[in-house]
Amino acid sequence: MNFTCGRNLRLTLFGESHGALVGVTADGLPAGIPVDESRMQAWLDLRRAYGDLSTARREEDVPRVVTGVFEGRTDGGPLTILIDNKAQRSGDYPERVFRPSHADYTACAKLGGYNDYRGGGSFSGRMTAPLAALGGLLSACLESSGVTVGTHISQCGDVRDEDFSEELTELAQQVRDMAGKRFAVLNEERGEEMQALIREAREDGDSVGGVLETAVCGLPAGVGAPYFDSLEGVLSRLLFSIPGVKGVEFGLGFGFGYLRGSEVNDMLTSEDGKVLTKSNFSGGINGGISNGMPVVFRTAFRPTPSISKKQQTVDPQTLEEKELELRGRHDPAIFHRARVVVDAMTVIGLFDLMLERDRDVWTGSL
Amino acid sequence: MNFTCGRNLRLTLFGESHGALVGVTADGLPAGIPVDESRMQAWLDLRRAYGDLSTARREEDVPRVVTGVFEGRTDGGPLTILIDNKAQRSGDYPERVFRPSHADYTACAKLGGYNDYRGGGSFSGRMTAPLAALGGLLSACLESSGVTVGTHISQCGDVRDEDFSEELTELAQQVRDMAGKRFAVLNEERGEEMQALIREAREDGDSVGGVLETAVCGLPAGVGAPYFDSLEGVLSRLLFSIPGVKGVEFGLGFGFGYLRGSEVNDMLTSEDGKVLTKSNFSGGINGGISNGMPVVFRTAFRPTPSISKKQQTVDPQTLEEKELELRGRHDPAIFHRARVVVDAMTVIGLFDLMLERDRDVWTGSL
Amino acid sequence: MNFTCGRNLRLTLFGESHGALVGVTADGLPAGIPVDESRMQAWLDLRRAYGDLSTARREEDVPRVVTGVFEGRTDGGPLTILIDNKAQRSGDYPERVFRPSHADYTACAKLGGYNDYRGGGSFSGRMTAPLAALGGLLSACLESSGVTVGTHISQCGDVRDEDFSEELTELAQQVRDMAGKRFAVLNEERGEEMQALIREAREDGDSVGGVLETAVCGLPAGVGAPYFDSLEGVLSRLLFSIPGVKGVEFGLGFGFGYLRGSEVNDMLTSEDGKVLTKSNFSGGINGGISNGMPVVFRTAFRPTPSISKKQQTVDPQTLEEKELELRGRHDPAIFHRARVVVDAMTVIGLFDLMLERDRDVWTGSL
Amino acid sequence: MNFTCGRNLRLTLFGESHGALVGVTADGLPAGIPVDESRMQAWLDLRRAYGDLSTARREEDVPRVVTGVFEGRTDGGPLTILIDNKAQRSGDYPERVFRPSHADYTACAKLGGYNDYRGGGSFSGRMTAPLAALGGLLSACLESSGVTVGTHISQCGDVRDEDFSEELTELAQQVRDMAGKRFAVLNEERGEEMQALIREAREDGDSVGGVLETAVCGLPAGVGAPYFDSLEGVLSRLLFSIPGVKGVEFGLGFGFGYLRGSEVNDMLTSEDGKVLTKSNFSGGINGGISNGMPVVFRTAFRPTPSISKKQQTVDPQTLEEKELELRGRHDPAIFHRARVVVDAMTVIGLFDLMLERDRDVWTGSL
Repeated sequence: MNFTCGRNLRLTLFGESHGALVGVTADGLPAGIPVDESRMQAWLDLRRAYGDLSTARREEDVPRVVTGVFEGRTDGGPLTILIDNKAQRSGDYPERVFRPSHADYTACAKLGGYNDYRGGGSFSGRMTAPLAALGGLLSACLESSGVTVGTHISQCGDVRDEDFSEELTELAQQVRDMAGKRFAVLNEERGEEMQALIREAREDGDSVGGVLETAVCGLPAGVGAPYFDSLEGVLSRLLFSIPGVKGVEFGLGFGFGYLRGSEVNDMLTSEDGKVLTKSNFSGGINGGISNGMPVVFRTAFRPTPSISKKQQTVDPQTLEEKELELRGRHDPAIFHRARVVVDAMTVIGLFDLMLERDRDVWTGSL
Repeated sequence: MNFTCGRNLRLTLFGESHGALVGVTADGLPAGIPVDESRMQAWLDLRRAYGDLSTARREEDVPRVVTGVFEGRTDGGPLTILIDNKAQRSGDYPERVFRPSHADYTACAKLGGYNDYRGGGSFSGRMTAPLAALGGLLSACLESSGVTVGTHISQCGDVRDEDFSEELTELAQQVRDMAGKRFAVLNEERGEEMQALIREAREDGDSVGGVLETAVCGLPAGVGAPYFDSLEGVLSRLLFSIPGVKGVEFGLGFGFGYLRGSEVNDMLTSEDGKVLTKSNFSGGINGGISNGMPVVFRTAFRPTPSISKKQQTVDPQTLEEKELELRGRHDPAIFHRARVVVDAMTVIGLFDLMLERDRDVWTGSL
Repeated sequence: MNFTCGRNLRLTLFGESHGALVGVTADGLPAGIPVDESRMQAWLDLRRAYGDLSTARREEDVPRVVTGVFEGRTDGGPLTILIDNKAQRSGDYPERVFRPSHADYTACAKLGGYNDYRGGGSFSGRMTAPLAALGGLLSACLESSGVTVGTHISQCGDVRDEDFSEELTELAQQVRDMAGKRFAVLNEERGEEMQALIREAREDGDSVGGVLETAVCGLPAGVGAPYFDSLEGVLSRLLFSIPGVKGVEFGLGFGFGYLRGSEVNDMLTSEDGKVLTKSNFSGGINGGISNGMPVVFRTAFRPTPSISKKQQTVDPQTLEEKELELRGRHDPAIFHRARVVVDAMTVIGLFDLMLERDRDVWTGSL
Repeated sequence: MNFTCGRNLRLTLFGESHGALVGVTADGLPAGIPVDESRMQAWLDLRRAYGDLSTARREEDVPRVVTGVFEGRTDGGPLTILIDNKAQRSGDYPERVFRPSHADYTACAKLGGYNDYRGGGSFSGRMTAPLAALGGLLSACLESSGVTVGTHISQCGDVRDEDFSEELTELAQQVRDMAGKRFAVLNEERGEEMQALIREAREDGDSVGGVLETAVCGLPAGVGAPYFDSLEGVLSRLLFSIPGVKGVEFGLGFGFGYLRGSEVNDMLTSEDGKVLTKSNFSGGINGGISNGMPVVFRTAFRPTPSISKKQQTVDPQTLEEKELELRGRHDPAIFHRARVVVDAMTVIGLFDLMLERDRDVWTGSL
């Protein structure tokens, strides 16, 4: 199986939910990037389970940067982040079981039964922890390039948050505001309603799905490519790597199917020698390349498949049907913790694409 | 910029809309695959502009396989398909212009103005022609492995086709039926209504968007990977390479945001020693890996940005606003031609992932 | 099989000796590079068979640049070079035969007999023609960056040319001088002796091997990497792709095995604020990275395996031993034609590595 | 910089000589491979410094497999090996210094001075420790496929060991014999002489170079590819990643330059339905692909650049010349410890190429 991605920034993710640790090594980083571990920790903290909205498995999640840093800056070698697993409780997984809508069966089918089935093994959402830490680190590089990324919970059940503003200055402020929020919404009242929905699901031994909306501000025109490295393609590949993501749309996305070109073409204008568009139905991307407007997209999460209600499954050995009651510690919803992972994936994808901007145009020498 | 993709099957796409040709070279094909050129032609024909639903640019689109074939079979070297451009009419593009919601501005910004701007250059949808041909060729390999791929037009404006059947045998028949259709719908009446919408848009000098639904039947469990080569990630990266695609969702996709786990978890059962699920809300994929059920996804297309209505743009040199009236030959809709390209991208992605199935499990020797 | 290479500059080579054409597509080139076709032609001409030192197969070898160029410059898309096969005479290859020390048997074993066996198919040295053309194009980019590459024939049989000068200015002149030479030697008398050796071999129906020496002048310090992208590793991988190459050594190479550190360590000094070494035993590379001194290496070519003397082989079907007398048109030596291919491979490898120099060090923004 | 390699087996190497640890993560391993840690340890032990032939830095080098293993077998996720640095003594590297013929200057030039200069940082030969461990693990897979790899010290100074036997059974025995040897030679007397040379150099505060010869037995025909994944190219790229390697030659290598085709073409014959050659001047490779005969190559190592004799260098800040007397703990020769690293690199390269053999030929389904 493949756990690597990226062309200029090359990541390999490794670990298992109930093994010794999870980690990532990032190859291709320029030397000299300041490594701010508190920022990694901050992003990890946003991802961490907390309160009654999340699993009772509470990992400390302290990132250890074991290679690639010298005197506080990247040293040109791969930067490796390890996060120890401490709160695993394998007694919860005494034997292989096929949990409905989990990867248990598909992993087993693919790997001939050799997969570590405890807590999903290397299919676990726990693998996103080192990515969140790395995202925190790289987000500082993007910010020093004038690029900020932020995500809010757009929808959960029938509750819908406000949309990100179409006004550039206001949007920039909203994106910044998301950084410090535990439960990231624009409208706090709606946030309360969403949390109530999650709690309700938890009490029912059930779970809920949701949709996140992400905006990237300050991205210059010219990032991405047509075809295989389109901004949409690179980001969606990373976003679909987050366990539970089942849909990604940019700008109007599926809404385009109802509309005419004359209604959704973004007219061009200019300001201070910079090309802008009067609307942003395209979500900041044309032909796979950023156009200088905010990049806006939405990511759909399925309800966590781990629920404690009775479910029907088959026995891994005999394939006979049987009932299943899951024990263990589960998240009644995942999207509110995953939003920092969406930010991290976005940062990682943009960083990779931006690393090669220097060679888009021939300057007369190498 | 990057025009390559794939790890086991490595493609490089090349060409320009108004250059000599467009083409693709496919490296990594096993030797001995029968090369049926009539099948390539058939897929190209489905992509071809026709009638009054499409652009007046009518290319013959005859694929020339110039390398990689010996005595009717692949020979182990890269297979190269060239398609000459014959009907280009560069007089339609006398000078650089930034067409709204096209890649004209972003390409120019990225490439320092060195891009071939005629007809979109290498950003043109014309680049998908060699991919359709290659898809036709590889679809035969998938079929001999028991895997079929089919796409219908799910929605255009307010008209919605029936959904693909949830019943396996019926779905398999529907998928096969799509193969020969010019305008691929399940319900012909709805198809007529959609065509009426497209004609109306054309008469108004406008265009319409739409949504396609694709199903893959017969895919065995175990194709894909968690994280970066998830089935969703690999397919979406390819799908977003098709000009005009702005959204991709698998199974219930964005619908998951409204639902609870207990409503959408797919219960497992078995039949003839094979694991199945009783519903298929997951769209045939769990943990990024196929689960043996049909893979089902939807792809959203924006309305073609080329419309003949007056639009506002800026002058590429002065950045001053100016009005734009596009001449040239344009498609009032693209999704009905693009559906075979969606099939091709699906086939290409699956082929790449399936090539490495032999090494998922250690067999005791290499 | 894999016919792609490069990370920043991605090449795919395609074609067969007796098919329609051979070609290469180069993805990842910056937009705006001037495309000088006469220079491609000049490099191809140096590779071309001529006189009585080469095969009687005389190809015109006119490169057609069919994609990637707009108004005389690269346009950001893949640049594709096609070279038609015109002088093939497949009657020379009426059936599959295993020529000793050729790839006939290994290709057949690998590809289950589906390989194009005529003239070596895609294993033929003819595949290097498009690489020579591409090398010519890219060498202009290197030159505008102050980097020049040149190769001379260092040895053939018992005749040895002078070594490249250790004096920097003289070496630079020698490298420039090689550009225009058909039979590239420093000492013309030795060159005559070598040519006599080749003619002698031809008359005997035999062939001879040889060694080339290459120097790269003007390469700044900092190109390459330790481990997998070491300058030695990247260049050697490309050089071993040239049919007939069986050895590569940098600086003193195998000579190091006889010597002590105190004899071969290159002492450092500086001139005009630039670090230099007083000797260049390292061949301009330390830790896989250029040190600013000339990069010097030697490449060993086996004698062409195609000889007309009687040889022993086995029948591809029955595996019974049989005698073989090769007809067809053969080169009594290949290294003198291959030297421009060595230059091309060097240029390609350096170009790929130099493309990413901009991101070695963090500049504070992307 | 790039620390990744491989296409099917993807490695990322990480760490620094004086950081917390060195390690490697190997992505793409089939699930179910038995993980024998004692074998990793055995290979690490062969690489370890010992006696008076090596540096006084004595690392325990215990490999910790922290991910990718479940119940004693690979689990389909990346296998990560960590080796802690325990015996580093950074006091030996109080400040940046440019040691002649080391990577100190080139690393600094490339990385803008941000590199970890202590003990060579990530340029250190210490990075090969995790590769040796991985090589040990994978060698078991090769052996179960009938492939064995062995290396002996062919030459040191004027002392030359016997060559590997040309007789297949004897060679196989010799290769097996090398496995257990500390100082790997065929002729023990010559080995004593070599060790005397090394000791002499150590006493003089000097170092010596050497040449290794490697043989691969039992490799089936059909491994490798022409061009960029030639067996020679893949192995040489890996071999040149070993610090100190400056030359690689296959079969007769540079000896080919003195000979004629009729002298060195390997005549074909067959035995028990298997094609063989009567001689093996080609070193078991034709057209970049194994021919079923033993693969034989030689690797040249420069003398360790760390010597305690007075040397001349420049000050990293002022670039003024200054004398240098190295303290610290150094190896008077490296090739005898590196031979297991050569084995490891060979195993890694072969494993990567052999992983894709299943898809050389179309079998009718995927």
